[in-house]
Amino acid sequence: MTPVRAILFDVFGTVVDWRGSLIADLSAWGFPRGIEADWAGLADAWRGEYAPSMDAVRRGARPWTVLDELHRASLETLLPRFGLSGLNDADRDHVTKVWQRLDPWPDSVAGLTRLKRLCTIAPLSNGNVSLLVAMARRAGLPWDMVFGSDLFRHFKPDPETYLGACGLLRLEPGEVMLAAAHAGDLAAAQRLGLRTAFIARPLEHGPNGTPEPAGAWDFSLASVEELAEAMEAAQG
Amino acid sequence: MTPVRAILFDVFGTVVDWRGSLIADLSAWGFPRGIEADWAGLADAWRGEYAPSMDAVRRGARPWTVLDELHRASLETLLPRFGLSGLNDADRDHVTKVWQRLDPWPDSVAGLTRLKRLCTIAPLSNGNVSLLVAMARRAGLPWDMVFGSDLFRHFKPDPETYLGACGLLRLEPGEVMLAAAHAGDLAAAQRLGLRTAFIARPLEHGPNGTPEPAGAWDFSLASVEELAEAMEAAQG
Repeated sequence: MTPVRAILFDVFGTVVDWRGSLIADLSAWGFPRGIEADWAGLADAWRGEYAPSMDAVRRGARPWTVLDELHRASLETLLPRFGLSGLNDADRDHVTKVWQRLDPWPDSVAGLTRLKRLCTIAPLSNGNVSLLVAMARRAGLPWDMVFGSDLFRHFKPDPETYLGACGLLRLEPGEVMLAAAHAGDLAAAQRLGLRTAFIARPLEHGPNGTPEPAGAWDFSLASVEELAEAMEAAQG
Repeated sequence: MTPVRAILFDVFGTVVDWRGSLIADLSAWGFPRGIEADWAGLADAWRGEYAPSMDAVRRGARPWTVLDELHRASLETLLPRFGLSGLNDADRDHVTKVWQRLDPWPDSVAGLTRLKRLCTIAPLSNGNVSLLVAMARRAGLPWDMVFGSDLFRHFKPDPETYLGACGLLRLEPGEVMLAAAHAGDLAAAQRLGLRTAFIARPLEHGPNGTPEPAGAWDFSLASVEELAEAMEAAQG
């Protein structure tokens, strides 16, 4: 069996807890400013705009746009619904940059640190490079390389992203594994010949999330630390 | 004055000692195999092919080719001159990959580690991403991001490289500094509005190297640690 030379990680939901972080960050920011809102509702609605906003780029209705700017545009449309139309431009910038201030799940940094000893580790995310770099610097994510979607000017699950990362690593798809909490992402990678590790994140969408559909993944695990354990065992 | 948000580093010669590393690595590899050669001569001749091989790509005489492959092609042409025609394919692969096994100058890792606390740090190199990632993993270079020339399909000093890195960082050129041991690299960056730090590496080409021409650089220093000191003082 070909050894795994690199593991690519989905980021939002898999490595970091976007929903919990958005609620905590925006509540703490708003409170001393007297800004109250349904932050959980905003987090869910904002994330709800994520796939449609990328789809608009994918079908050419919108030119290539980095995720930072898609996030900002989605926020603008949501503010009135959440009683936040009064936020000024600097506030809107700060709120949009919350996507750089996401906290890792408790096992992420420890697991990545162990995996980095075994092989190359990098995010493969729909986030742009600058967002991912800022997030990694703040959260201490020990990436060897950062694959943002702006390197490929494509969003996952477009094949250009998975194959683009393999190409830049000069590895065959079979030497590369995608680790993700989302079946659609893993299925796209698997179709292209990458190996797959499902990391269950049942709380990604809060207490009422629906489980991901099952799939024939190479690994199906509950944390990045469990992936490290599995890879350590496999490599001997 | 705009603060420096990111420092880009030239790698070969500035962060790592390619000549000393090539000689040490290839001597140690050849000795137990009974392979002797003028390794210093090979290092110098190989590096001598570096600029001409990239020029061939730049003027379109050769399609886009990553540095790994330019190195391999140059090696092939040099082997007979150094009595090394007998190397088999696996040997040639191993020897070509010496460019991933370069040791940092003694101040590089300590200086980069300090600078990383202040701002984003990344290589901006004519090396390809996979070469730079392998080098960083082995040498412990704590990059936040890796800008290889294959991201831009251009080699320095083409403007696409400097401006491409600034664009991916979503920074203005004036917020970004290039640190390099080579006046030509710094001059190209300076023309585009980047800030410049000259790091003197008088031993890059061995004991008989010629000094780099002077320039109106923002900083002119003797090590990456001195750059860390200067940036700490400026920000502190």
